[in-house]
Amino acid sequence: VIGDSNREQSTSGSLEPRFDPQALLHYARAVLERANVPPEDANTVAQCLIMADLRGVDSHGLIRLIVYIRRLHAQVVKATPAIQVNRPFPSVALVDGDNGLGPVVGLRAMETAMELAAANGIGLVGACRSNHFGVGAFYVDKAVRAGFLGCAISNAPPNMAPFGGRERFLGTNPFAIGIPAGDSAPLIFDASSSVAARGKIIAAALKKQPIPPGWALDPEGVPTTDANQALLGAVLPFGGAKGSAISFIIDILSGTLTGASYGRHLNTLENLKAEQNVGHVLVAIRRDVFLPAKNFGDRMDEILQMLLASPPAAGVERVFLPGELEMAAEVRNRKMGIPLNPEVVEDLVGLGSEIGLTFPPRLGDAPPVER
Amino acid sequence: VIGDSNREQSTSGSLEPRFDPQALLHYARAVLERANVPPEDANTVAQCLIMADLRGVDSHGLIRLIVYIRRLHAQVVKATPAIQVNRPFPSVALVDGDNGLGPVVGLRAMETAMELAAANGIGLVGACRSNHFGVGAFYVDKAVRAGFLGCAISNAPPNMAPFGGRERFLGTNPFAIGIPAGDSAPLIFDASSSVAARGKIIAAALKKQPIPPGWALDPEGVPTTDANQALLGAVLPFGGAKGSAISFIIDILSGTLTGASYGRHLNTLENLKAEQNVGHVLVAIRRDVFLPAKNFGDRMDEILQMLLASPPAAGVERVFLPGELEMAAEVRNRKMGIPLNPEVVEDLVGLGSEIGLTFPPRLGDAPPVER
Repeated sequence: VIGDSNREQSTSGSLEPRFDPQALLHYARAVLERANVPPEDANTVAQCLIMADLRGVDSHGLIRLIVYIRRLHAQVVKATPAIQVNRPFPSVALVDGDNGLGPVVGLRAMETAMELAAANGIGLVGACRSNHFGVGAFYVDKAVRAGFLGCAISNAPPNMAPFGGRERFLGTNPFAIGIPAGDSAPLIFDASSSVAARGKIIAAALKKQPIPPGWALDPEGVPTTDANQALLGAVLPFGGAKGSAISFIIDILSGTLTGASYGRHLNTLENLKAEQNVGHVLVAIRRDVFLPAKNFGDRMDEILQMLLASPPAAGVERVFLPGELEMAAEVRNRKMGIPLNPEVVEDLVGLGSEIGLTFPPRLGDAPPVER
Repeated sequence: VIGDSNREQSTSGSLEPRFDPQALLHYARAVLERANVPPEDANTVAQCLIMADLRGVDSHGLIRLIVYIRRLHAQVVKATPAIQVNRPFPSVALVDGDNGLGPVVGLRAMETAMELAAANGIGLVGACRSNHFGVGAFYVDKAVRAGFLGCAISNAPPNMAPFGGRERFLGTNPFAIGIPAGDSAPLIFDASSSVAARGKIIAAALKKQPIPPGWALDPEGVPTTDANQALLGAVLPFGGAKGSAISFIIDILSGTLTGASYGRHLNTLENLKAEQNVGHVLVAIRRDVFLPAKNFGDRMDEILQMLLASPPAAGVERVFLPGELEMAAEVRNRKMGIPLNPEVVEDLVGLGSEIGLTFPPRLGDAPPVER
């Protein structure tokens, strides 16, 4: 897989039913509203989840609606938080999310960053007392659409061993960067800091297949290709010591700096007894910060073209832009519908049936998509 | 090797003479002053080079003095540039380096970033018409000493194939991040975006040893373990598609955004007929941007201790902090002297003898250091 691997493969090689994106959006919104989330916030969260599914990042799509609702019901996430925005310095703000849903807090932070950037060139916004914020692409896409460069990082509960370590310490802390271009599509790059998504390991375990070396450690800290042992152990950071350092620094900036939780203090999503206190950092930069916007756009178009025209390695069809495959998935899924794992569909149907909501009909079976 | 691999191993396993850091600093300063670099700027450049040697990053140490002087003589770098600082927005500045030495332009940019950050919380400074800026650690160390978080990135001439590509397109674009702590030493992380330093491939070629798979491609774009073929081909980015994207984004921010050169337009250091127009981005952030400085310092101390205490993987002694090994090298080399490759010493002696400067005496042979 080229590009972002912050995605989960379909856990089966079998057919996955496809669904109309708009119908899924309405459904997710309705489910959230029934859990007392205000309509505007429900829309934000639903848009964030659907964006992940559209981009083929199933791990951060509607599958998360289930745990979001579970946490709302358990009252470890607030449906109607009193979010506070403090502005200690002219180009900086701190958003206290009051334990609201991550996408609601994250979007508020990115909107604040854009406001600050419009006036000052750059805006830096930290968020604390937040929750799982979905795909970083959601926030940097908002920035790019408004003409800004955007950056979104978040910490996450420990799932990954640091370089040289054995135990889960780091989250698979994501980082997303969006850069507007001229005539070309913008660059939207979004990645986790793990070498491979945990979902791929789950898929291998289900198929009783080994995983490639370098993905994970068993519980004793020994590298393993046994998917089940890997799930009991820890995933590894991308890029060895460098990726591990990047993930650690994301935790410091998102958590240690902002007042959110960090390191092993972060509770898992599955722990329904405690708040998570996840932290994020959102940055927006005017695209005309150094050069006129038109000039920068032309230069972006050129460097993107230059990379696309770069000769491929032996056995490779062509060089892809960062995020290009996710963009292609989005175009495809908007047209053909969003493929959902049947087990996820079953859970989502269940979620609605308890409260009298009908899940949208499938558009028909689609063959698995080559990735 | 744990930690930063933006370093070159000694190209021989043999003894390397050590030299007094202060004496080397004086020598480098004198050489630069004879090339008409003003004393203050000569000091900046010398400090930057010595810092690399102290930290064991030989590739960016005094070895670079030779090419810096060569470029000054060839008049493709200016000894007395008229550096301009423009401030288009309150938190942002653009430094036009007027083709001055990279460390002079880079330091000016970081100083400006700190000034902007002091007033606004964050300062973002782009630099264009600059040159090779040495180790990024030099700039983030300045920020950290002044109580800021710092970030330094730069583009560099094409040396590396993008993920999926065959030809040199990306520089081994470095990124450095510095974060002050409380009682603990600050975190200073500095890495290139290549999987392994080119110097390690040179070392393997000299020793007629193979290189590990995944480091480089031959000129046909086929992965190779033949060091000589690798030197003719291209090195690979760290972390596969993700590291390649990071390197590409560093090029966009440093070059495309600032008005500097980018992609394949960047001339090599060795081309003595043309300016390079390298670009950098320097960022400073107040450490008390979200929390009181003392509180943040305590939290930093805790997360650093938490990582250090994290149980090691099988066969690993302990987990290291990002940049810890470079810091240890600095302590060692300050005490024992800086080890220099005999060939580099020969070149440096030659550089001085042409202008009547005597290279400092060696402190005695030192055994090669375990890394």
